[in-house]
Amino acid sequence: MEIAGFIESSQKQYLPNMSVDMVIIAYEEGRLKALLLRIRDKWLLPGGYIGKEESVDHAAGRILRERTGIDEPHLKFLAVFGDGQREFRQEWMEFFQSKNIPWREDYWFNNRFVTLTYYSLIDITQTTPVKGVMDEEIAWFDFDELPDMWMDHLDILQTARARLKEDLKHEHITHNLLPDKFTMPELHQLHQVILREKLDRSRFQKKMLASGLLERLPKLQNDTPGRNPFQYRVISPEA
Amino acid sequence: MEIAGFIESSQKQYLPNMSVDMVIIAYEEGRLKALLLRIRDKWLLPGGYIGKEESVDHAAGRILRERTGIDEPHLKFLAVFGDGQREFRQEWMEFFQSKNIPWREDYWFNNRFVTLTYYSLIDITQTTPVKGVMDEEIAWFDFDELPDMWMDHLDILQTARARLKEDLKHEHITHNLLPDKFTMPELHQLHQVILREKLDRSRFQKKMLASGLLERLPKLQNDTPGRNPFQYRVISPEA
Repeated sequence: MEIAGFIESSQKQYLPNMSVDMVIIAYEEGRLKALLLRIRDKWLLPGGYIGKEESVDHAAGRILRERTGIDEPHLKFLAVFGDGQREFRQEWMEFFQSKNIPWREDYWFNNRFVTLTYYSLIDITQTTPVKGVMDEEIAWFDFDELPDMWMDHLDILQTARARLKEDLKHEHITHNLLPDKFTMPELHQLHQVILREKLDRSRFQKKMLASGLLERLPKLQNDTPGRNPFQYRVISPEA
Repeated sequence: MEIAGFIESSQKQYLPNMSVDMVIIAYEEGRLKALLLRIRDKWLLPGGYIGKEESVDHAAGRILRERTGIDEPHLKFLAVFGDGQREFRQEWMEFFQSKNIPWREDYWFNNRFVTLTYYSLIDITQTTPVKGVMDEEIAWFDFDELPDMWMDHLDILQTARARLKEDLKHEHITHNLLPDKFTMPELHQLHQVILREKLDRSRFQKKMLASGLLERLPKLQNDTPGRNPFQYRVISPEA
């Protein structure tokens, strides 16, 4: 059986007290969204464990690729969540019972786990969400309409939401949330959504153009009459 | 014997694959300094382990207090260092041999360790450095004159040095490195040292005063004739 097999092999394969959790963030129709998984009646962040000889960076990249299908996703460290009693014994026990899989007290994922959390800004149109062996469903949730979640996973999500706002103030990149080519109104709206505040449109445009990070593309969009039709893309560091 | 006793008790007490390392940074005579420990002929960062039911935050605070004697030290997360082969088997084996303590292959600190690193900006005049049970010496080192260090500890130090510069750009606080009361020339010099660049004195003063974070104290210093004698202190958030 698939789950039983996973438990058997994972017991030896992974570091015993450490997990990785991912806040995978996308932007669609003016809303910020997070990719979540359902186990029974609650939702959790995509996550996984670190192989005994695997680097933490490799584990994070692997877990993110597995759930999004993206080859080289944006990935940034968020924070350590390390409460002394951080364990999911009860949740796993109920899950196993619901699947009629024998439960054992000494299963390693009953341990206390320190979780290393990351966030990733992705282009939703490039993503193919894939659930893991334990998961019953995978779905995008609006940050303003989050479901019931496992233990501190809501806290992790909110920490990522706040970090995104902080990053933007320090002029970190956010274009990962947009397609390769985007218009100034699209970028303007994204910044407004992240900051939760109105930004003067012409001052915003001036600031973005002055940053030297954007390249205006020669081709015109013809499906948005009455608006600035130019498309932009981010100048890649190699260029 | 003290070391043998520590090993015996620590085997059961701590999480098996995770450590905490501290970059403790001070500022003295125009130089940035880090507090390091010596074991045999190499130096390492102050560090420790996380109790099986202890929160990561608590462990970090405890380790920092033990080495500095400061009650409520500044403490900020730096980064995870998680290479797949990150272990100190060889170093510990040589240390044990040098002390004539029996060596065992299955000692838990031979494990691969993911280390959670932090940095702390402290006032050197308020610090009482204390070495741990394994350490042979504790000393301050100029960041520009660092000694031979264990594995990736130099890398961790340099990451902290770079973060300090980054933090300053984002106008994070640095006054933890100064005594409670300081003069504008002292603050100016500190910023120059951190950024490794000259800062125009009067523009710097204007910017600092405009920040609204500093309070000018009424009392004059009388030991620095010819300079701006005013002292400042940081307005505490509660005030």
